[in-house]
Amino acid sequence: MKTLCTECEEPAPHGALGRCPSCGGILQAVYRDDALARLEAVTPGRGIDRYRATLPVKTPILSLGEGDTPLLRSRRLADLLRLDDLRFKHEGLNPSGAFKDRLAALAVTLAREAGSRSLLSASSGNLGAALAAYCAAAALPCTILLEPGAPAAKIRQTVAAGAYVVPVAGLFAQPPEAIAALTGEVAARLDAYHAFAWAPVNPYILEASKTIAYEVVAQGGVPDVVVVPVGGGDTLAAQWRGYQELHVAGIIEGLPRLVGIQALGAAPLLQAFESGSEHVPMLADVRSSISGINIPFSGAHALAAVRASGGHVAAVSDGEIRAMQARLLREEGVWAEPVGAATVAALPALLQEGRVASHERVVCVLTGAGFKDEVLAAARAHAVSARRSVPFSPAAIIEALQGADPPPADASLD
Amino acid sequence: MKTLCTECEEPAPHGALGRCPSCGGILQAVYRDDALARLEAVTPGRGIDRYRATLPVKTPILSLGEGDTPLLRSRRLADLLRLDDLRFKHEGLNPSGAFKDRLAALAVTLAREAGSRSLLSASSGNLGAALAAYCAAAALPCTILLEPGAPAAKIRQTVAAGAYVVPVAGLFAQPPEAIAALTGEVAARLDAYHAFAWAPVNPYILEASKTIAYEVVAQGGVPDVVVVPVGGGDTLAAQWRGYQELHVAGIIEGLPRLVGIQALGAAPLLQAFESGSEHVPMLADVRSSISGINIPFSGAHALAAVRASGGHVAAVSDGEIRAMQARLLREEGVWAEPVGAATVAALPALLQEGRVASHERVVCVLTGAGFKDEVLAAARAHAVSARRSVPFSPAAIIEALQGADPPPADASLD
Repeated sequence: MKTLCTECEEPAPHGALGRCPSCGGILQAVYRDDALARLEAVTPGRGIDRYRATLPVKTPILSLGEGDTPLLRSRRLADLLRLDDLRFKHEGLNPSGAFKDRLAALAVTLAREAGSRSLLSASSGNLGAALAAYCAAAALPCTILLEPGAPAAKIRQTVAAGAYVVPVAGLFAQPPEAIAALTGEVAARLDAYHAFAWAPVNPYILEASKTIAYEVVAQGGVPDVVVVPVGGGDTLAAQWRGYQELHVAGIIEGLPRLVGIQALGAAPLLQAFESGSEHVPMLADVRSSISGINIPFSGAHALAAVRASGGHVAAVSDGEIRAMQARLLREEGVWAEPVGAATVAALPALLQEGRVASHERVVCVLTGAGFKDEVLAAARAHAVSARRSVPFSPAAIIEALQGADPPPADASLD
Repeated sequence: MKTLCTECEEPAPHGALGRCPSCGGILQAVYRDDALARLEAVTPGRGIDRYRATLPVKTPILSLGEGDTPLLRSRRLADLLRLDDLRFKHEGLNPSGAFKDRLAALAVTLAREAGSRSLLSASSGNLGAALAAYCAAAALPCTILLEPGAPAAKIRQTVAAGAYVVPVAGLFAQPPEAIAALTGEVAARLDAYHAFAWAPVNPYILEASKTIAYEVVAQGGVPDVVVVPVGGGDTLAAQWRGYQELHVAGIIEGLPRLVGIQALGAAPLLQAFESGSEHVPMLADVRSSISGINIPFSGAHALAAVRASGGHVAAVSDGEIRAMQARLLREEGVWAEPVGAATVAALPALLQEGRVASHERVVCVLTGAGFKDEVLAAARAHAVSARRSVPFSPAAIIEALQGADPPPADASLD
């Protein structure tokens, strides 16, 4: 593995942070072709360390059991959508409940290789919770600059894991360059490893999301379409790189189309995609409450990945997203957080517009677990806990059940 | 596989519920020895269906990705305890966040094999949440009689998955015979599959916990000691059966000692163990708030398993349990619910009393995820969310950090 500039191709030292010292380009880790081919021989099991041959570290990756999440076949929504093969890559079964555990495992290992005594990052919620847990395991003090509107469950996890949490007003309303300048200055003052997961700052962390692609292929072969929620876009871009690596190494023949899903009220990538631009605009304001994708910017790398794959970008409303979170649990038993449910919420329109065909193999990446952000469930539970307990008697229980609302019937998804 | 009475050894039909029709004894599924030997050849991967050869079903087990949870090596607490090899079997990484998903996968498959059109059970929290999700996946209406004091997160999951939830006053203050009579009558009236997980009612469901033992052996060999929280005792008894099966089949040579942990305020198994009795008393009242083990009864099967294994029973206070929940996250990055943390909380006394030796390989079974019951974390997060956001400026952030409490130093565990 070596670190090269993506523009001038000059090498940089192992683990170098920031932009290329020669030309200011974005750095990237590059691997030998035989390293990629070795992926075929990876043994099953949890922990992304088994993919170390194509991850930007030289030492074992600290593991809390991240990765190897299930690829579940849809039982009921696929039929309603008339999709032959719909699967969910359920990243909620990671240790802190989100795919960010893959990134945190890598980030903490990078920090140790750099000899850092602490770590700092900015987060809209899940990355902070993941970094806090992995730093705890590594006995590395952790500071998280947090989006103040993050769901309470994510804040609780981060605080309980012992991280220093600083809610910063308007954090993710700023462009990534401004956030990076802020986190960079604070990291320097604290002498902390700079783990803001944005390639011009830290070109390595996002690579952890490649392992989602590796696992999808190992579990079910190459899909025709992979649907991914897009905030900043690193997750989509990294998965595209993962599929490309498998292709270059001759491990897979075809490549999937990548479809990026945004919230209607926070869709800069959609704007750029539809306008044919290579530049992704920064939105003046964000009108979405979906944690993880309610940010005003996306990266050009995600746009390039969508286009190179022959994919698409679409957006769905917050209401559609939260309704699909509820349906995934009630009709599939799959408890995902809203941002991941957005991928499934987008399917009806994608099918109707011919962006996805009924016979295609579709994988929706559910990025986190339902407990992370459970607005609908909390509202329903409120109604139950408000109801008085029923006496310990069969007759009283039968009577209570007769007064209960029936579970919802299957509804059309059109 | 056949179903036999554990007392008169008369056969019963496949899937028969209740006690032996001949003598009133408890029924049990029995497997051929070559079925056990085939466990050696199971392929890795999630879903307990790969262990079907020794599970009491004849059709594929419905899977939401349960099982294959990580066996994590302790990084910091082991050193503090001076234990050479401490591992955590982290059952929180199951789809609904607890090992009960193994039971729910089996229960729903049993209900389908029985041709049932719905399912009913009683739960103190996690089993209800798991059954609700698996019934949703199977399109099987689900009714849960719930302990009213269950943690809110567990109630939210169960309701959101579409189960009919009836909070029954004093449900788990009753002896299991009385609960079984209640659930039996309601199940009969509803024509529902009777999934109250107690062997005299349903001799099959508890067997799912055997798969925890299979996985521990596959992941790390035979431990010297397995520490398990004990409420009703099914979980401990079933794991003991799992180790015994592996032993009879010649797959493992030694057997672990099983140590059962209870809450000090709900310790009927400890009373029986210390008194040398074979009868486990029913407590008049329970003085513990630890969901999952704050019940007044335990089964004699758990007592027999502890004694047969040469193991032990111990109890810890609610305060020790909740403190260990917090420490597991802050010092290991492992986010477990209190009932599982009880196993780790018991280790200092077990070591001091010589029940466990420093050189032994110890596995603590962490039965559920932290989000299930996060009293301490919620309290800490309250403090953070009450703090005003800091302006988007490095100086303001540094100032806020200088006023923050430091993370706790490592403390002795004595």
